[in-house]
Formats: sequence, structure tokens, C-alpha cells
Amino acid sequence: MLLDIKLLDIEATDYPLVLMHKEDAKFIGVRRLDRVNVRVQTENFVAVVDLTEKIVSKGQIGVYDYICKKLDLSCTVQAEVTPAAPPESVLYIRKKLDGNTLAKDEIYSIIKDTVDNRLSDVELSAFISAIYTRGLTIEEVLNLINSMVNTGQILDIKKKPVFDKHCIGGVPGNRTTMVVVPILGAAGLTIPKTSSRAISSASGTTDTMEVLSEVSFHKDEIERIVNKIGCCIVWGGGVDLAIADDKLIKVRNPLKLDPQSLLLASILAKKKAVGSDKVVIDIPVSKNAKIKDNNLAKKLARDFIELGEKLEMEIKCIITYGGKPVGRGIGPGLEAIDVLNVLEGKGPYDLRQRSSEIAGLLFEMGGKAPRGMGREIAEQMIDKGKAISKFRQIIEEQGGDSKIKPEDIPIGSYNHTIKSEVEGRIDFMDTVMINRIARVCGAPDDKGAGLYFHVEKGEKVSKGQKLFTLYADKERKIDNALKVLDGSPIRVEKVIFDIVEGVSV
Amino acid sequence: MLLDIKLLDIEATDYPLVLMHKEDAKFIGVRRLDRVNVRVQTENFVAVVDLTEKIVSKGQIGVYDYICKKLDLSCTVQAEVTPAAPPESVLYIRKKLDGNTLAKDEIYSIIKDTVDNRLSDVELSAFISAIYTRGLTIEEVLNLINSMVNTGQILDIKKKPVFDKHCIGGVPGNRTTMVVVPILGAAGLTIPKTSSRAISSASGTTDTMEVLSEVSFHKDEIERIVNKIGCCIVWGGGVDLAIADDKLIKVRNPLKLDPQSLLLASILAKKKAVGSDKVVIDIPVSKNAKIKDNNLAKKLARDFIELGEKLEMEIKCIITYGGKPVGRGIGPGLEAIDVLNVLEGKGPYDLRQRSSEIAGLLFEMGGKAPRGMGREIAEQMIDKGKAISKFRQIIEEQGGDSKIKPEDIPIGSYNHTIKSEVEGRIDFMDTVMINRIARVCGAPDDKGAGLYFHVEKGEKVSKGQKLFTLYADKERKIDNALKVLDGSPIRVEKVIFDIVEGVSV
Repeated sequence: MLLDIKLLDIEATDYPLVLMHKEDAKFIGVRRLDRVNVRVQTENFVAVVDLTEKIVSKGQIGVYDYICKKLDLSCTVQAEVTPAAPPESVLYIRKKLDGNTLAKDEIYSIIKDTVDNRLSDVELSAFISAIYTRGLTIEEVLNLINSMVNTGQILDIKKKPVFDKHCIGGVPGNRTTMVVVPILGAAGLTIPKTSSRAISSASGTTDTMEVLSEVSFHKDEIERIVNKIGCCIVWGGGVDLAIADDKLIKVRNPLKLDPQSLLLASILAKKKAVGSDKVVIDIPVSKNAKIKDNNLAKKLARDFIELGEKLEMEIKCIITYGGKPVGRGIGPGLEAIDVLNVLEGKGPYDLRQRSSEIAGLLFEMGGKAPRGMGREIAEQMIDKGKAISKFRQIIEEQGGDSKIKPEDIPIGSYNHTIKSEVEGRIDFMDTVMINRIARVCGAPDDKGAGLYFHVEKGEKVSKGQKLFTLYADKERKIDNALKVLDGSPIRVEKVIFDIVEGVSV
Repeated sequence: MLLDIKLLDIEATDYPLVLMHKEDAKFIGVRRLDRVNVRVQTENFVAVVDLTEKIVSKGQIGVYDYICKKLDLSCTVQAEVTPAAPPESVLYIRKKLDGNTLAKDEIYSIIKDTVDNRLSDVELSAFISAIYTRGLTIEEVLNLINSMVNTGQILDIKKKPVFDKHCIGGVPGNRTTMVVVPILGAAGLTIPKTSSRAISSASGTTDTMEVLSEVSFHKDEIERIVNKIGCCIVWGGGVDLAIADDKLIKVRNPLKLDPQSLLLASILAKKKAVGSDKVVIDIPVSKNAKIKDNNLAKKLARDFIELGEKLEMEIKCIITYGGKPVGRGIGPGLEAIDVLNVLEGKGPYDLRQRSSEIAGLLFEMGGKAPRGMGREIAEQMIDKGKAISKFRQIIEEQGGDSKIKPEDIPIGSYNHTIKSEVEGRIDFMDTVMINRIARVCGAPDDKGAGLYFHVEKGEKVSKGQKLFTLYADKERKIDNALKVLDGSPIRVEKVIFDIVEGVSV
């Protein structure tokens, strides 16, 4: 069927979509979400059909502007539109829905079509639902990881082995990456670290690092930095490592479908794409974290290790307590201050401790420390000033001010301090609420916004003692945070519950 | 967040969609496919978010034209945009994905939100996938049917009981509805029959009836006709009976997901919505039909009957042979000729036989015939001329020419007859290929296009005997059909396979 092209000023989907008039579609026998082949002169593309009775008239086809641009089509001519079969990968999605195991090339076909935008949201949603309900064998997860790696960019790092670390997330202020990377780099190990931004938390490693330097680099820039100084701390979203994973995450969000097989695949595909050989994975456990108990954490750890072996990646997991924030500051700027202080050999102790444990384990895996001695060597890298020097070198290479001091980092000009109303002991810190309050204060977009804790979990406090301070760029945001604070993120266990006095007769 | 409204000239989805700039979305913490609440002056609606960096600028929100019109919003003012939670039904979709049984009100919530366009394609696709992989209990199917009925239109038919029939489909030329309805109507029974159009076949009952009368009526017009003459043959798509079903079918198409529970729900919801009390369901069986073997057909029949009992609907199923076309003509006009001929007491015999069996069964269910005598009474209605009189009354009420004769029906002016190249017996008719050829000829849109068979399955043919004739409005379509015909839809079993002669030395 020959149709006149009408350009549409919109780019609402990743996959090519064309709009047809209902009667034209009926005539050539295609229904909503079916595919058509669109031929314009010598160019050719397959698109998913949406139907209309208004936007395009009979005899017209609505083609999104960006398709024309991308394919360099002249959209003033006519298009020959014929029904097209869906890609073969749709059959494999159905096969998984039917409960069958997918072969290597079938998984590759789905992932390749995902990357090339040949699958619609409806089809991708069915794929995620199929994985969620039917599960994946370890072999399927492995094939999924390799398909994700091979359809995305791959870092070319000269000096092997490549070290890496990853945290399952969910703990406010857990910026161990920014301490571990310079420790390893200072010892001459290679660690091309990519991190993410905050999705629902107060700050991601990328958001915090951004206080000190640029974070968004192309593949060749990252390679240049790492091949020069051995390490980096950059944004993974700036480079298309395992790009299929990012596309699948978009359709997982609406139903919050996080099947464990996809969690594993997502993390390990990114590690494989940077060429990691030796990886430590931090699995924080608490009722408020992603992993709720120790047994689940151990099971997850075993899966990581098994997959790692098949991927020729040595993996060790460290199961940590996830029921309290790490460090004193929560929010990009306040966390950056903590990181600089730790690297300068000062507190907060918990951030230093966690980071040294992880770095130490990597030293042991790399044969740079005898078993059990890694943490000590890691702490020496801090105490001898080598880690902070390396960190300043990273900041410099990534375009930041390498001479920056903790007190140079701007924090919100409005603040409000909360004090304890009773005498007692801090026995509960609500990590979900802490993230929420920091976000209401403006984090992570307002770099100086967030919370600063004056006390730690378990610490004894007296009545009137400072618990934490809120920081924000605008007074209104402090006010909003105080409204949310109706339930405090800190619970103080009272020493004296009540005083009962006798009634004088 | 206050944003300027930008009107978008598009209506690509059923559910409200707004376009936000990526940075604005990040600022208020929403991701692609999350929901936002949009407040414009005193009006308010929830929409799904898609992201852009081009179509709308920072500070703008793209609102589809039809939303503004529908809600009568003034789109020259600003909108207050805040994150909104997904509807509760999303939790129930997840619950089904997790393998749990859904309660009555949970199913109702999903179906109501489907009808009200509160669920996105991604969410509906996950719902269909969940049903496909997890299945539904008979209780869930029942609740699904009742939810579909209660969220759509319901016919108000005065004279009870209401009779109905349905065919699972897939057999070319199977126009029993157009014979059964006038037979029942002639006997004073009530049968408000709604039918569908062809999706992939050569013609649906609606397409064939459209040759003789109008088929698209509003609810009150259908009620008027049925309350006056007891019956009708109209398009179900013209009235919103069990509208949720139509919306779910759209997302089932791309992956061709037809879980049996949805097949049952879809059919019975439509029956319940017209108020049916006594229903005969025709289940054709053959390798090329939807139901491949007799045991599956019996299982399906038992499910229909069990659900019918719970819905207070008496259901009987008739399992028929589906491996050959019914009647001589395939295509709207050619089928309409067959129907008129059968009602006038002439052939084709197979269409008369099938229709009388179904009508007879309904007579017996309604107490209008003793057991085993129904078909005879049905045939009497034809032979005494009562059925054709009733059919002409239906045509008249539905705005057609009640005096029409078979020879008045226009058929394609171009034709081509295929003859047998060998002597033998017709042993296979390919129903899928027959539908395909008729469509290439132009059916169902070209009313006169299609195939006419000169022979029946099992018949002996001599070399050179006419097998079938193609009809089309344009010569080019005949040529296209002949190309498809490369493999014939009819296989003639040769009497003499080959002649082997001795080599003369």
C-alpha cells in the first residue's frame, strides 16, 4: 500500500513506531502493535503500528521525525507499506512464557533485538514477566550476561588483572568505592570503576564524586585515564556498557519486577564489560535493605561466585550490616567531606573500616597481601598518605580541583538541628526515612543538601544533645523536611521510661 | 513542580500519557512509565510519563490533545505536576505474577482500571503474561467474566429466555449464525446475536451480513430491534459489551497469547452481556483449526459447561469437523448467496446440516422440541419457508433490501477457474490457504471477492474438471492470488500414481 508520509514531532518510544489510519491498517490486515515494513525509495525499515482516526488521514502514514532523521529518509515522498512478521525473538519470548529453557542463540536474539530497538514495550514486558514467573537456569543467566556484554561497549584496559567492587546498595552514605579505588590505585592495581546515580536514595557514588570532578566520560576517555593512572571513578551511564540491561530496567520499573536472575545478570554484565578479573561484592543485610536476611545473602553470594567461575571472574562476597547509615553525612557534598576525611586518615570510623575490609580482600585476591593481612595493608595506604595522593590524581585526571579540602565543599546555607528530647541510647536508625528526608532537602540534585549525623547507632545521648542537622539551599525545603520528620529517623531508647509518684493523701 | 503545557497533536495510546523533559522528571523523582498527578486549575488527572529531551523543553509538559479535550481543560495555563502512585491494580498484577490466586475485588480492580485506561501497555502485557504462565482457577475466570460484564454495556432484552450460539471459529464459510438466527426467530424464540468481523479469515459473520443490511447499531437500537422481532444479526464491535475484553485482546495480539482461561472469559462475558440463558457453542476440531483434537475439545466443552452453571447459563457444546470449508462460497458476497440458498430450501447441504443441528439443539434446550427431534423441527422451519421470511424481516429491520435474491448479490467481475490436472478424489482442503487466497483476492473488504468451490471434500473428480473459481474486483488481485496458489488449497488423491513402461531394447 502506497501512503503519503506525514512527519510527527514526537519521539515517545525507543522502537520505531508509525501511525496508520484504522481503515488503511484493516485493508492491509495489520492490527495495533503489529509490524509493517516501510520502504521509502531505496531505504527500508520495520516499525510497530499504532492506529488513529485523527492524526493521519486515510492514505497517510505518520512517521516519527527521529526515524526519518536517523535513516536519512526524504520524507516528502511516498512510502510502500506492507505487513511484516515480528522478529524471531518474539517466538523465543513466547517459548520462555511457555516454561521452556532458552538456548544461547535464542537469548542472544532477544538481547540483540532489545538493543536494536526491534521489540516493543509490550513484548519486553512479556519477556520480563516470563523470566519473573518461569525463572532462568544458571546456564541461561550466563548466556544472558554474555549476550548483554557482546551487544554493548567493552572497555579495553591494558594492564591486567582488572579489579572491581560492587555494592548491592540501599545503605545511605555507603561511599566505600571512593575510598577503595584510591587505595587499590595507590598500590598499583587496576580498577576502572563505573558507578550509578541515585534512583531513590539520597546520593549515588556518581552524584557524590560529581562534587569533586567530572564523572561523564566516553569509552576512549575512560580507557585513556585508566591506562594512564590505573583507576577512575566515573558514571556507568555515560558509556553503553551492557546497554541491553538499561533498556530492560525501563520496563521492569512499572511493576518493580526484580527477579534475582536479572539482578545477577545486570551486575555481572557490567563487571564483564569493563573486563573485571577479581571482584568483591558487598551485600548489606537488614530489614530495610534489598536483602532481608543472612541466608538469602549467602544464597545470593553463592550464585555470584558460581556465575563468576563460568565467566572466568574470581568473585568474593562480603555480607555486611545494612541497618544504619555509613559515615556522618548523607547527600553528595556531605558524603564527599566524609570521604576526604577518611582518606586523610581521620573519621568516620565505619566508612574507613568497611572500605579497608573490601580493599584488603581485593589485595589478598590479587596476591598483594597474605590471607588475613589485606585490611592492615589497606589501612597503611591511608595512613601513609598514599591513598589521598592517588585520589587527588583521580580528581585531577577527571577535571576537578585536586587541591580541594573538606572545608572547601559547599553545603546548604539553610540548616536546622534536631536534638534529643530524652536521655537514652540510639537503638534504631531508619535508612528508608533518612534517604527520604535527604531527598526532600534537595539531594542529590542540590549538591549541598542532606543530613549530618552528630551521633551513631548504639551511642548514649543526653536530653538536649544534638542528633542530626538538616542542610538545604532553600528555607522552604527545610520546612518540607520538618513536615516529613513527623516520625523521626532515629529512635532513642529511653533510660528512664516514666516516673510514677505516689499521690499524697 | 509547575510546568507550562504544550499540546501534542497525537493520540497514540489509550491511557493518558504526558511527555516530560528528562531533567524535570529526574528532579521530581519520576522515571519513564512512572505516573504523575497533573493538576490544571481545578481539574486533575493521573498520567503515565514518557521522557524526552527534544519535544518539550525543561519547564514544559507535553499533554496529548485528546486528554485536554476529554477533560475540557484549558491548556493555556500551567499544570502542577507531582509524582503519583500507580493504581492498586498494579499490585494485584504482581500478585498474579507471583503465582497467587486473586480475590474477586482484586480482579474487578484490574478490569475496571483496564476499562478506565489507567493501566499502561507494559502493565497489561504483564497481566496477560501472568495469566498465561500462572493460569486462573475456575473461580478467578468466573470473577473475570463478571468484572468484564459489569464494566461494559449490558443489553436489556424483555422476552426471556434469551438464546445464543457461538462458534470458536477458524472454518472458512461457516455462516451457521445467519441460518440459525432466522430459524429460532421464526419459532418465536429470542436471539439477539452479536458477531465479529474477520481478523485473519476471509470473512466474519458481520462482514457477510453487511452484504445484506447494516450491521453497526447502538445498544438502544439493538434492543429496539430485538424487542420488536425477537432477533438480530449485528456487529458486536459496534456496542461496548465486555469492553475490557477488547482492550485486553490488543495486548494479547503481539505475542499471540491465547490462554484458554481468557478464551473462555472472552466468549462467556459477551454472552452474559447480551443476557443469554441458553447457549450452544460450536467447537470445530482439526489440525488447522484452533482446537487440534477431540480430547482438547471435550475438555474445553466441560469448562464451558461448568462456568455456564456458575453464571446461570445453560450451555451445550457441539464438537464438529473443522478440516474443510462450509458451503460453496468463501468471501462475504459468495457466502451471503449460500445463506440465502440454504434458507430457500436449497443447498449447500453441509451449511444446512450444521445450522439445523445447532438450531435443533437450542429448540430442545428451550423445550420447543422433544429430545432428538430438534433438528427435524429446525429443517421444517426452513422447508415451510418460515426461516427465509424471518431472515427478510431481519434484513428489513436492519435497513437492507428485504426482497434481495441470491442473483442480485454482486460478485467480483474478474474470475479465474482452476481445473484438476489429474483424475482422483479430493482428499485434503487446506482451510488456512483458502482463507489466505480469498484475502489476496480482496475479501473481506471487497465484498464480491473470494473463492467458489465446484467440488466437495471426498468427491471424485476427472481430469480437467472444475475445482474452484477465484473472484476479484481487479485483475491484479487475481494475478496475485494465482502466485499464492503455487501450492493448491485442494489436494487430489490420484487414482493412478504413475505409469512405468518397460524400456524397449
